[in-house]
Amino acid sequence: MKAAILGATGLVGQRFIQLLNSHEWFEIAALTGSERSVGVEYGSAVSWRMETELKRKIGELIVQPTDPRNVDADVVFSALPAEQAMDTEEKFAKEGFIVVSNASAHRMDPDVPLMNPEANFNHLSLIDEQRRQRKWDGAIVTNPNCTTAVLTLSLKPIAAGFGLRNVIISSMQAASGAGYPGVASLDIIDNVIPFINGEEEKVQKETQKILGAPGQPAEFNVSASCHRVAVIDGHTEAVFVQTQKPASPEEIIRCMEEFTAEPQKLKLPTAPEHPVVTKVEQDRPQPRFDRGEGHGMAVVVGRVRSDPVFSGVKYVVLGHNTIRGAAGCAVLIAESMKSQGYI
Amino acid sequence: MKAAILGATGLVGQRFIQLLNSHEWFEIAALTGSERSVGVEYGSAVSWRMETELKRKIGELIVQPTDPRNVDADVVFSALPAEQAMDTEEKFAKEGFIVVSNASAHRMDPDVPLMNPEANFNHLSLIDEQRRQRKWDGAIVTNPNCTTAVLTLSLKPIAAGFGLRNVIISSMQAASGAGYPGVASLDIIDNVIPFINGEEEKVQKETQKILGAPGQPAEFNVSASCHRVAVIDGHTEAVFVQTQKPASPEEIIRCMEEFTAEPQKLKLPTAPEHPVVTKVEQDRPQPRFDRGEGHGMAVVVGRVRSDPVFSGVKYVVLGHNTIRGAAGCAVLIAESMKSQGYI
Amino acid sequence: MKAAILGATGLVGQRFIQLLNSHEWFEIAALTGSERSVGVEYGSAVSWRMETELKRKIGELIVQPTDPRNVDADVVFSALPAEQAMDTEEKFAKEGFIVVSNASAHRMDPDVPLMNPEANFNHLSLIDEQRRQRKWDGAIVTNPNCTTAVLTLSLKPIAAGFGLRNVIISSMQAASGAGYPGVASLDIIDNVIPFINGEEEKVQKETQKILGAPGQPAEFNVSASCHRVAVIDGHTEAVFVQTQKPASPEEIIRCMEEFTAEPQKLKLPTAPEHPVVTKVEQDRPQPRFDRGEGHGMAVVVGRVRSDPVFSGVKYVVLGHNTIRGAAGCAVLIAESMKSQGYI
Amino acid sequence: MKAAILGATGLVGQRFIQLLNSHEWFEIAALTGSERSVGVEYGSAVSWRMETELKRKIGELIVQPTDPRNVDADVVFSALPAEQAMDTEEKFAKEGFIVVSNASAHRMDPDVPLMNPEANFNHLSLIDEQRRQRKWDGAIVTNPNCTTAVLTLSLKPIAAGFGLRNVIISSMQAASGAGYPGVASLDIIDNVIPFINGEEEKVQKETQKILGAPGQPAEFNVSASCHRVAVIDGHTEAVFVQTQKPASPEEIIRCMEEFTAEPQKLKLPTAPEHPVVTKVEQDRPQPRFDRGEGHGMAVVVGRVRSDPVFSGVKYVVLGHNTIRGAAGCAVLIAESMKSQGYI
Repeated sequence: MKAAILGATGLVGQRFIQLLNSHEWFEIAALTGSERSVGVEYGSAVSWRMETELKRKIGELIVQPTDPRNVDADVVFSALPAEQAMDTEEKFAKEGFIVVSNASAHRMDPDVPLMNPEANFNHLSLIDEQRRQRKWDGAIVTNPNCTTAVLTLSLKPIAAGFGLRNVIISSMQAASGAGYPGVASLDIIDNVIPFINGEEEKVQKETQKILGAPGQPAEFNVSASCHRVAVIDGHTEAVFVQTQKPASPEEIIRCMEEFTAEPQKLKLPTAPEHPVVTKVEQDRPQPRFDRGEGHGMAVVVGRVRSDPVFSGVKYVVLGHNTIRGAAGCAVLIAESMKSQGYI
Repeated sequence: MKAAILGATGLVGQRFIQLLNSHEWFEIAALTGSERSVGVEYGSAVSWRMETELKRKIGELIVQPTDPRNVDADVVFSALPAEQAMDTEEKFAKEGFIVVSNASAHRMDPDVPLMNPEANFNHLSLIDEQRRQRKWDGAIVTNPNCTTAVLTLSLKPIAAGFGLRNVIISSMQAASGAGYPGVASLDIIDNVIPFINGEEEKVQKETQKILGAPGQPAEFNVSASCHRVAVIDGHTEAVFVQTQKPASPEEIIRCMEEFTAEPQKLKLPTAPEHPVVTKVEQDRPQPRFDRGEGHGMAVVVGRVRSDPVFSGVKYVVLGHNTIRGAAGCAVLIAESMKSQGYI
Repeated sequence: MKAAILGATGLVGQRFIQLLNSHEWFEIAALTGSERSVGVEYGSAVSWRMETELKRKIGELIVQPTDPRNVDADVVFSALPAEQAMDTEEKFAKEGFIVVSNASAHRMDPDVPLMNPEANFNHLSLIDEQRRQRKWDGAIVTNPNCTTAVLTLSLKPIAAGFGLRNVIISSMQAASGAGYPGVASLDIIDNVIPFINGEEEKVQKETQKILGAPGQPAEFNVSASCHRVAVIDGHTEAVFVQTQKPASPEEIIRCMEEFTAEPQKLKLPTAPEHPVVTKVEQDRPQPRFDRGEGHGMAVVVGRVRSDPVFSGVKYVVLGHNTIRGAAGCAVLIAESMKSQGYI
Repeated sequence: MKAAILGATGLVGQRFIQLLNSHEWFEIAALTGSERSVGVEYGSAVSWRMETELKRKIGELIVQPTDPRNVDADVVFSALPAEQAMDTEEKFAKEGFIVVSNASAHRMDPDVPLMNPEANFNHLSLIDEQRRQRKWDGAIVTNPNCTTAVLTLSLKPIAAGFGLRNVIISSMQAASGAGYPGVASLDIIDNVIPFINGEEEKVQKETQKILGAPGQPAEFNVSASCHRVAVIDGHTEAVFVQTQKPASPEEIIRCMEEFTAEPQKLKLPTAPEHPVVTKVEQDRPQPRFDRGEGHGMAVVVGRVRSDPVFSGVKYVVLGHNTIRGAAGCAVLIAESMKSQGYI
């Protein structure tokens, strides 16, 4: 099946290319970019920042305008900036394209699935609703903000087993989350930046939407404090949880270890065997050693312990922000959609 | 007045030297060290890691054994490792010395003041109790763990104005907190370490002791998650607070800005004019730019905002971990003691 | 005397403000900026990145257009980008302004002094030539590229004492050399960038011009390899030197230690007492500990040792790239000009 | 064939394990360690710092004393510290073991091959001489210091094609070169350390030995300046070369690209297809992106350009210091020895 990537020169666009490059179902058929890049070979237009080499075949593709008329594809992955995504993604959906988007523009639209497949596979059902309301044959489906993707994957087994009442999360986010060039080195060497524009609101609302029923956000409270640290890839999150039913650290660990969902059952190509991996070492997870777990699609949880404030648990979770938290999640969504006949 | 520094070659010992070097009340009279250093000139024994030069006069002092018989001083600052501090500090107190200690060994002893002077100046009264019980003329007074020192200074105005019910804190701690050589570069470049041995327990208990009455720990709950990041100096802490009386972010900011205490009233030499400085810029405090505030003795608070979980507030606080969080706090304690006739 | 700063919002512009803020001769009278900033208070227009606070009085200055008609000043410091500097600086000189520039645009003009005051104070004489040829009453004088400023200050005593035949230099340059935002954190965390556009050519040519007679570049060879490393401030340079007369490491150290020049003799306010400081510790100089030497105006040399290739010496030199290597050097040039009646 | 690793808990020991873990010829049969570790499961004794997981089977091996009586192996890889290596390696050789060592102890012994296989495969012939002189059946063969391994691989094609007269090299070395814990984070964050004990002498002498004939060091001059930067893995080296016959940058690039040697011809398992990879991008090589080239066994060269001092060339070369520069090189040596019947 043919895949197009909108906004392919940015950091998430590059990650899409890396992940789709040898994908067993999808083949990269078109790359689009901003005016500056259109008509140029992708290899010349991009500041390639992945650790693996850009394949020559991809590097020779000519960058197309981000316009439905220039794209022929079974699925369209959007790595567009939020402002541009708003209209452009709708334009593609109207023309019948399936758009799986990493942009925040449509995430909170009630009829747009905001999906982290292991956490809310059933939200795919919103697509039918969306088509009816918007009168189009295409679809827009979104993946969460990077911090939310990591958080909700770790929360899902707890929500399922014990129910959630309150969640407090403090993040230590990687520089790659801000794109390229993104965070200036003068801002992050020997430093922490305790602010990421709009991030905390996204984490709070998106988490409720994902862990709720389709169309019905969950009602537990979420409070986030988001910070940037000197890390290339991998968001680390300290999480404090008050559950509805009491749960010991051991029970929490067990429910995480046993957790699998539809993507695992359907053996989707990008689904990690264990979506939530737990560590017994007391100083893990660490970005440099754990961000590659499950090819970047698993989250790694450590330090599950009792919390004296909530009489609940606290733990640390880590996930790869541009794989599980962005491009990888979107690819898994597309695989989920294909498995259900939407693509 | 003559000051001695026990364990003077470590990172906190060096900070003591830097702070006392031109102090208007105290003069460095003796430096002690481990066997390896005894008898050697301090300048040769130390791996000096301060940004300012070691003064020649200090560098030429001969390192003494850590033994009361080798020390003649009005006040003794202890930068000893915890294991060694336990017995050694008692030995000095028995010999009539006033020991102000950065070690954790005696912090939780009920009759030992654990002091952050602006937060609990009145705990000095425990000294009388201590002398009665321990039958000695000296005294042991301790400063808090670095993370706790920063936290409690920011909490004190809130506690005083609105009362505390629950406090959750997630830290991003500097490498210097682990001493020298301390954290290996292979562990912290492009990485976060989500574990600091014993730290969370210290933060939880010490905070309750400091913000309680003398001899009576406060009863609010504290839960901490502690992490190490690639920063030289300056601990950043994300704090979520449930107050007893409702308080808006504006009220919290005002009570912090207006906060002063005995050290300010007594114009103690090391007391910062404003112990809690608030920032309006949304991306502050930052370690590199704010750790020097009040010569490292003030904490800097930013991003005070409403918290949806506690219907309280959340904020970010930063303080210099080896100044306000260690040596500087100890010096301010000694100044407080002198002002009350204990030295 | 009144000073204006052209291009005041960039990193070098900020350093000019920091240095001139309490200068005994010059007072900041005007700040200019790009269209985006004109008419705005400086404090709002700038992303202030200095470690010291921006003074309120400066922050309230309204940013002016970079046009001679909007500026009233005895000396104009230019922190303009090279492209803009070319014409704009000439326009100011034509209107009679004394322009001291950090831009590279005019550095290699034969009638423009390229000055590192301790190295070539006598190049001031080119100003008369410049005025005659260009038929203007003003003047353009330039400071060197940051790497060259550090290098030539360390080479001057050697050139004077032993003559130079060949110089090879390999640099490890700080991120601040690229301005703000400048180097992306994704490019420098856990990385080295072995390329800085145009830098090596500048180092090679500027060094010959500075260490030659006025109007006559020196004839020794220089070869540079320039690299960017994860350091905030402070360029480190490994230098291999073939002298004309044989020189032992001890002789080189002595000639560096004894070196002073006109700025020291005239006691110019910004001149460091010892322009070249030597270290005996075998692991120095280091950026974090030595970049502040002489308030950032001295260079620090260490590891002077024999070189088996040149039968000469090799050493490591470090200097603060935005002080000695940019704004501080320009201020010292202005002081030199004033001392000779040019301002 | 059975392989033992001496000093298996250190950083180079870990790299040996990672490389041998799925090696087609060698199987890990024994791991030795210091007293502290002996008798303990390797997984508990080691601070595992590789990015890939430690295999369970290896983790369960019991650490043995470093004594020939406890080891049964066809080849012994030594990752011992230099002091210990001196005697211990001889003891193993006397007992008939083939020792391939990363330690510096025996590298400069005239009858011990110091090998970088693509550069001096023919030095294997020294083994016969060694056996005759030392009257043992075993053998000691060494790999170079990490910086030298990277340097000599890039120099070999130049030496072969044009001859070498002078080589100046300035290194920017990764933290992993100092082992674990090694470089303190307080020494390298926002810093450069311009000194590595003994390194420059090693680079100078080892380069001459490797690029000479067996038993006859080459006569060209080498001068090194060695520096540590904030990089995890990958040494970057700026190299200035005076050749005997004139060579243009294009000729140098061509001879590097066309370079292969016995390990490639023999298709040894660890030999990279292209030992010297050249880059056309002007800002490469970079440690983060290029250290994995050829599974860490190739060096990457960029920025080949004319050098005005030597009328020669200068370039930047990068290689993985614990793979090509240590364990990987040793494994390739063992493969070379096996191919010639020495194992």
